[in-house]
Amino acid sequence: MLIIGTGLLGTSLGLSLTDAGYPVSLRDISPAAAHLAQDLGAGQIAAASLVPDLVVVATPPDSAGQQVVAALHEFPDAMVTDVTSVKGAVERDVLSAVSHDDAARFVGSHPMAGRERSGAAAADKDIFAGRTWVICPSPVTRGAAVELVREVAVASGAVPRVMTASEHDKAVAAVSHVPQVLASLTAAQLGDLPAEALTLSGQGVRDVTRIAASDPMMWAPILAANAAAVRPHLEGVHQQLEEILAALDAAEQEGLDAAGVMGTLAQLIESGRTGQARIPGKHGGAPRRYTEVLVVTPDRPGELGRLFAEIGRAGVNIEDVRIEHSAGAKMGITGLFVQPRAAAPLMKHLEELGWKVMLP
Amino acid sequence: MLIIGTGLLGTSLGLSLTDAGYPVSLRDISPAAAHLAQDLGAGQIAAASLVPDLVVVATPPDSAGQQVVAALHEFPDAMVTDVTSVKGAVERDVLSAVSHDDAARFVGSHPMAGRERSGAAAADKDIFAGRTWVICPSPVTRGAAVELVREVAVASGAVPRVMTASEHDKAVAAVSHVPQVLASLTAAQLGDLPAEALTLSGQGVRDVTRIAASDPMMWAPILAANAAAVRPHLEGVHQQLEEILAALDAAEQEGLDAAGVMGTLAQLIESGRTGQARIPGKHGGAPRRYTEVLVVTPDRPGELGRLFAEIGRAGVNIEDVRIEHSAGAKMGITGLFVQPRAAAPLMKHLEELGWKVMLP
Repeated sequence: MLIIGTGLLGTSLGLSLTDAGYPVSLRDISPAAAHLAQDLGAGQIAAASLVPDLVVVATPPDSAGQQVVAALHEFPDAMVTDVTSVKGAVERDVLSAVSHDDAARFVGSHPMAGRERSGAAAADKDIFAGRTWVICPSPVTRGAAVELVREVAVASGAVPRVMTASEHDKAVAAVSHVPQVLASLTAAQLGDLPAEALTLSGQGVRDVTRIAASDPMMWAPILAANAAAVRPHLEGVHQQLEEILAALDAAEQEGLDAAGVMGTLAQLIESGRTGQARIPGKHGGAPRRYTEVLVVTPDRPGELGRLFAEIGRAGVNIEDVRIEHSAGAKMGITGLFVQPRAAAPLMKHLEELGWKVMLP
Repeated sequence: MLIIGTGLLGTSLGLSLTDAGYPVSLRDISPAAAHLAQDLGAGQIAAASLVPDLVVVATPPDSAGQQVVAALHEFPDAMVTDVTSVKGAVERDVLSAVSHDDAARFVGSHPMAGRERSGAAAADKDIFAGRTWVICPSPVTRGAAVELVREVAVASGAVPRVMTASEHDKAVAAVSHVPQVLASLTAAQLGDLPAEALTLSGQGVRDVTRIAASDPMMWAPILAANAAAVRPHLEGVHQQLEEILAALDAAEQEGLDAAGVMGTLAQLIESGRTGQARIPGKHGGAPRRYTEVLVVTPDRPGELGRLFAEIGRAGVNIEDVRIEHSAGAKMGITGLFVQPRAAAPLMKHLEELGWKVMLP
């Protein structure tokens, strides 16, 4: 296998597949970057005589299509994939530039292993563990290309999923790109606020804006490349905001009893509630409802360890956990999500051990 | 003290203050609700002869102003507060309805102890522990009223903060009400998505939409009551969306190189990043940056307990934690947020114990 582009994803994949016993060759437009990846153990600098079975193009999104086309020409017997996060644009670039036979050897893919850092130095062989790796065959992709990428995905620890580029791009528009835009818009509203006002921030605004810390140079090209799928959603949001603004204006002028105010605002929250409930639970299964148990936790080393050790001894599986920050007090509130039937025994157990426990 | 309204907040406050040794009287328009609160231990049903020092109005927001006015008239020597989450509307109602002397005995307040359930049966004496309790004196409020509410806030375990109703309402518009609207709009976009697309949901969309699960009947009145402070933010978002839609349209028509496309989209993400970085860290201090250490965690009872016990033995304080769900694999990724200097020793320690560890 040849990996072209030894940034974070390329180097991590090299580390992961080398670890799994595959021979990996590396190439980068920067010889220093390729040597760093080799020194890290991601594989060997590619020999001129190399005849790879699979080429993984892991260059930035704006050059990926062009690199795939070059690889299809350079290695006429190899399957070629790329790992960018918008699939339609690369597929269109490739299909318009190469013959049907060459295009049959290309399959786009998207390992959903998002990271906040970049570069080979941040690479890690475990970044694919448990993540979804979407494989997007074009109408002309050979089955053998899909199977080879699937094998690589599984070897890296990822969970492969096959869908079309269009299905992929529409899905990530709704579950990733639109949330990014609205999280950024929410966070942008905090820019001009008095510092005093920001001290009232609770867990809600922290959760909504966590991904707003993302890198503009990573996100601007993604949003532009997936404009066709993102735009209809944001047009819908724009339209709904007009209705909400009209309702708020009526509430301000005429009070809460003004016609349509409560209906419009309740409908907004209700439609969000309906959409939120559709997000699948753990392991891609149907949405499951966990019961949250809140535990007051002193803010010193070992308290969380003591808490989780006692939960472990009770044999309760924690499905999810969150820590709520407390403004001005040296304590936190730890939210433990458990199966509903486990909540009451867990609360009893923890209370007997002296923890302050409550339901949300 | 007299608590009027024995729903979730009133009953929880009664439980908390009874526990702290204060004599608490209870009243509710529903005798059954008052008796339930009494049976739970939140205090005694108010005697007709009661002369309270402090009246806490804990009725729903649409009746709170009216109940405060009635309490100021009924108990001419008592201080009176309410606990609704929008302060300007109640203050205006009270100041316009009573004499200057009566108004001096009123101070609005907002214990920021949000819960997802309601009613006395969900009450808990610990819901105020570590939460901010905002106290909003009007221009005519006596210092003694502020001090009495501050004492009650501290006795309940909360951390009191004094600001004007206008400062409070503007702050919660930006850090609570606008995030709620945009989280709901984000989640609403998931309503029509194919189920297959939703399986690509990662931690980002889960975080952004968590609060979208909120109750419409709680939120519609809050948004309407705070319309004046919420509206300018949403008008800003509406305007920014127009610019983003224009950039996406240009990207779709002319490609990523079209004038202004990258600039508009990068500016959106960058302004969100700037706003997000202003959210204070734990304990209301300046924003601190923690280092996140990711640990691959098998999904079975006791694994988290084992992990946290080993962290506790290493003497490392975990500042925050998140669990990332893994689609289709029986494992999770636990994100541990620690002080930057603690990250490398923690990773080494966990790796030696056999955990798969990485940086984000």
